[in-house]
Amino acid sequence: MKDHHIPRDFLAFGKHVGVKAKKVADFGGVFSVRPAVGTAIFTRNRYPGNPILVGRRHAEQCALRAVVVNSGNSNVATGDEGLQIVEDCVRSAASSLGIPPASVLPCSTGVIGRLPPRDLLVSEYGRLKEHLVGDEFEDFARAIMTTDTFVKLVSAEVDGHARILGTAKGAGMIEPMMATMLAFVFTDAHVAPEDLKRLVKSIGDRTFNRVSIDGDTSTSDTFAMIANGASGKEVRFSAADALLYDTLPDPLSELPDSGFPDGFSREFILKLGQLCRDLTRMIARDGEGGSKLIELKISAALSREQALKVGRELINSPLFKTAVRGADPNWGRIIMAIGNVADEVIPFEGLSIRIGKHLLDMKDNSSVELGRLAEELKGPEVFFEIALGTGTAQEILWGCDLTEEYVRVNAYYTT
Amino acid sequence: MKDHHIPRDFLAFGKHVGVKAKKVADFGGVFSVRPAVGTAIFTRNRYPGNPILVGRRHAEQCALRAVVVNSGNSNVATGDEGLQIVEDCVRSAASSLGIPPASVLPCSTGVIGRLPPRDLLVSEYGRLKEHLVGDEFEDFARAIMTTDTFVKLVSAEVDGHARILGTAKGAGMIEPMMATMLAFVFTDAHVAPEDLKRLVKSIGDRTFNRVSIDGDTSTSDTFAMIANGASGKEVRFSAADALLYDTLPDPLSELPDSGFPDGFSREFILKLGQLCRDLTRMIARDGEGGSKLIELKISAALSREQALKVGRELINSPLFKTAVRGADPNWGRIIMAIGNVADEVIPFEGLSIRIGKHLLDMKDNSSVELGRLAEELKGPEVFFEIALGTGTAQEILWGCDLTEEYVRVNAYYTT
Repeated sequence: MKDHHIPRDFLAFGKHVGVKAKKVADFGGVFSVRPAVGTAIFTRNRYPGNPILVGRRHAEQCALRAVVVNSGNSNVATGDEGLQIVEDCVRSAASSLGIPPASVLPCSTGVIGRLPPRDLLVSEYGRLKEHLVGDEFEDFARAIMTTDTFVKLVSAEVDGHARILGTAKGAGMIEPMMATMLAFVFTDAHVAPEDLKRLVKSIGDRTFNRVSIDGDTSTSDTFAMIANGASGKEVRFSAADALLYDTLPDPLSELPDSGFPDGFSREFILKLGQLCRDLTRMIARDGEGGSKLIELKISAALSREQALKVGRELINSPLFKTAVRGADPNWGRIIMAIGNVADEVIPFEGLSIRIGKHLLDMKDNSSVELGRLAEELKGPEVFFEIALGTGTAQEILWGCDLTEEYVRVNAYYTT
Repeated sequence: MKDHHIPRDFLAFGKHVGVKAKKVADFGGVFSVRPAVGTAIFTRNRYPGNPILVGRRHAEQCALRAVVVNSGNSNVATGDEGLQIVEDCVRSAASSLGIPPASVLPCSTGVIGRLPPRDLLVSEYGRLKEHLVGDEFEDFARAIMTTDTFVKLVSAEVDGHARILGTAKGAGMIEPMMATMLAFVFTDAHVAPEDLKRLVKSIGDRTFNRVSIDGDTSTSDTFAMIANGASGKEVRFSAADALLYDTLPDPLSELPDSGFPDGFSREFILKLGQLCRDLTRMIARDGEGGSKLIELKISAALSREQALKVGRELINSPLFKTAVRGADPNWGRIIMAIGNVADEVIPFEGLSIRIGKHLLDMKDNSSVELGRLAEELKGPEVFFEIALGTGTAQEILWGCDLTEEYVRVNAYYTT
């Protein structure tokens, strides 16, 4: 793992314990060996998994030190018996690691409606101290995967000293039920509890909460962040700092390695933003059956809410997503989707649409113009900017195209 | 056309005039030879076609006598020049038929963003009197089709005397842009203007506004109804009568041919409801690339709004639609979609799910139980009832499954 900036005083592992029948990693954890500050945000789905019911209580206290994940069974819709299993697991973990139960964040992803293997999980949670002997973040990243096609692991160094490492599992099909997103960020910077809560909410809203594979929200989505202060560097974060994310440069360009005149906090916030955006893009690129990443910027909007409303309508429109699939320059479908946001006044005359580098001329339906658009829609990443002409706010969203493969993988999974 | 109940004093035609390059019917009209009452409801899309801008003004006056439709070009996003074409067409029609312009409802469906052929259309609108010589409702039904795979035409007789005939074009792919729904109902009953407005809104909301092929709303959707009183029978409709629709029996069973003790109005309202529901089901069955009709009843809801919110989430969920495609009894996806309606309190414990004739037992994940569910999902029509357990309101929605064919037809259309 010499390619990654591993944050100090964290241990990580991932391995096969048998939740999945197939012999692949299905259990993993990350632990800060020193006291830490840690919190999380969760799915807004009304029927969250049992681990989320417990995780919400723990995240509230902002003292997470350990994240433990099993894939293969989500422990959703399993009633009180399922909840009891989570609580038993957490107690086992706390006792093994010598920390309060509220410092443990339990996560599960996989099939819905079946009780997870209680004895196996309680026993493995109880052996966490044995499991946590190295910094095997890549094994951890692998253990949380389901049908993801690649490991999602990124890291950064801030001010040449403090480190951030993030990993996620994408919206890949989970045997055999649905897509779940899990994202975790670990850093050895020091962040005060209230600052961390604001930071997680703010960055989560602008990255992981802006990805949509098919408009469906899983019952287990989680984004957690733990900061243990081992680097000795301190991050301060105010509500105003959230606006920094809006100044992030093109996702493909790199931030400078140094030269942040406003100091460590600013550099940290921007690098964290970039890192979470990179994970978000990886999740979108690896979307179920997707063949193309769609990055969609809604700009010149009256408010962020308006931008988001239009963006969500578009990124979830099957007609738009299939047009991207076929590299078909059907801009009428973009107009139709924007027009579907019926409760916002967005005059047609003020609209401006950019596809890739090309600014669309809606009066020109020549084959030259359409050919240029089709050209921009080829390749594995496509970019759209829709300027609404109603103000100055903006939002960026990510998604993927809709393919025959999506239908196949979701229709013919054998339960 | 001896199989249909043709309402008295209506003329109809459909033919090829050349809007479409292919030699298929692309122009048609229906006209009441006597003064009539007629109105319409339209798409809520913010960027409606130019015909809709004109049609809204005319429908408001409730004196429609003629419906004229071209397929092949929707006249959407064509600016003032496109609007001028519609107004010229309407003037031609009015002059040919000897009626006020406000008695003409112009409709267009087809490609977006290209000016329709002005001279051709103005000339054909001017020849309506020549065209309208018979009762060729089937030709009309054919002229409004795009990629519909079958003609949608239904009729009924009320009280052995008054007649209702309805036709629609489905959510089939329109060369090469998007799906549009057009529905027209003609009757020789007499209905007062205010009653007709309420009737159209009420029945449209419960039928055509409850079908969703892919969650996208076209820029040209229209439902119009014309009543010319030629039968001498009179319908009275009050807001309370709207509730009658909720008592409609199973869509597959037939209403009695006679024996409505509450009289003509009640029979008319119920038969009109059944006729519009039949058209709605035909539209859903013929959904783009769809292989199965989905009928979804949300019952035991706190309010119609709550039922509708849950129903829309489910009928548009790609994960739900692909599960239906594969006859995969993944009821976890239903739970997930209901849980996505995050602003409604719907306790999990109160949920009850029926698939076809089978009431789901969420505690039983045996292969026998799942096999029974899979059995109910086979066949061309599948029925779901989700009882929310929060009240007594209900709504029925229609849709279709999501197939590889949907992706193909929408991704690889050559512009």
